[in-house]
Amino acid sequence: MAGRFISFEGGEGSGKSTQARLLADALSDAGQAVVLTREPGGTVGAEALRRLLVTGAADRWSAWAETCLVNAARADHVERVIRPALARGDWVICDRYVDSTRAYQGAGKGIADAELCTLHRQVTGDLWPDITIVMMISADLGLQRARSRDDGEARFESHDVGFHGRIARFFARLPINEARRCHGFHADQPVATLAAQIAAHVRP
Amino acid sequence: MAGRFISFEGGEGSGKSTQARLLADALSDAGQAVVLTREPGGTVGAEALRRLLVTGAADRWSAWAETCLVNAARADHVERVIRPALARGDWVICDRYVDSTRAYQGAGKGIADAELCTLHRQVTGDLWPDITIVMMISADLGLQRARSRDDGEARFESHDVGFHGRIARFFARLPINEARRCHGFHADQPVATLAAQIAAHVRP
Repeated sequence: MAGRFISFEGGEGSGKSTQARLLADALSDAGQAVVLTREPGGTVGAEALRRLLVTGAADRWSAWAETCLVNAARADHVERVIRPALARGDWVICDRYVDSTRAYQGAGKGIADAELCTLHRQVTGDLWPDITIVMMISADLGLQRARSRDDGEARFESHDVGFHGRIARFFARLPINEARRCHGFHADQPVATLAAQIAAHVRP
Repeated sequence: MAGRFISFEGGEGSGKSTQARLLADALSDAGQAVVLTREPGGTVGAEALRRLLVTGAADRWSAWAETCLVNAARADHVERVIRPALARGDWVICDRYVDSTRAYQGAGKGIADAELCTLHRQVTGDLWPDITIVMMISADLGLQRARSRDDGEARFESHDVGFHGRIARFFARLPINEARRCHGFHADQPVATLAAQIAAHVRP
């Protein structure tokens, strides 16, 4: 596969989606073919699963039900969008991917990381990002930011603060534990400053 | 857990659902508290996933997407319906369970049985039926029967005949390979004859 696969990760309100879009714009402006996509979602089937995952009561799904749903969505997304784009030589920029599963269903809800990684390898044919941009923010500040928007996707925001703290700590450790793939950025900086740091890091 | 857990398995048009209902009726008539349920489904969340699984084009979901969807539905069903019923001392009669996943996504679509069984143990906390009634029928006769009804759930019926042949062979071998739990019945007998055979087998 000739393209590059870049994922953006972080907790609620960490600014991932904004930075993913800014990086996609910058690469497009420089003449690179880019596919900007997101998880859960990115295909018709996966977006239907997204609605089941991000709306409704916090206890709507158990940890394993959620894990299976996000992996079903990912299987569809990888097969129909990500792999074909990479095969064409496009760059793929994905707002959330496997590390969100490890953070939310793993660190957040107690499923063992090794079990999640095994399932990921099976479901995706072992497809990992080339680069993962990790947006690091405290759970308090992130939730405050996330709750100020009203996008109708508040199910995870409605989880308790302990859950979000475990996620924030997972994302803070990720760039240390998996330093070759994952690079951390402090999310509490001006948007343009962060965008410049990320672009400088990603530039080939 | 004090109750008993009985699953009915078989290919399309094997008469499982009819026999599951007849057994539930017979047990109820004898004074036993019975929960008759089905997969994928049995809860509000799992029935929403059922609609995604059993309608639409044959290639709507890949093998792993399907596997994750049926396991998400099963996680919800086991947690909210099956385990609570067994804990109350009820008997649970379930129209399809883990062996359908091993048949359809395993034998039918090529996912290794060991991987499916590992995921099943994780997702359900290792909950297996006490007794599995396997309805054995040739793929040809089963499909002919299934296609004569019009229930709007034809996605799997629309798969090719090779797929249904692999499923029929899996179900034919299951009572031999797992003889302690699984008991095969020839589905091409009169409904009342079969019901009597099954009831005699299940009676405590």
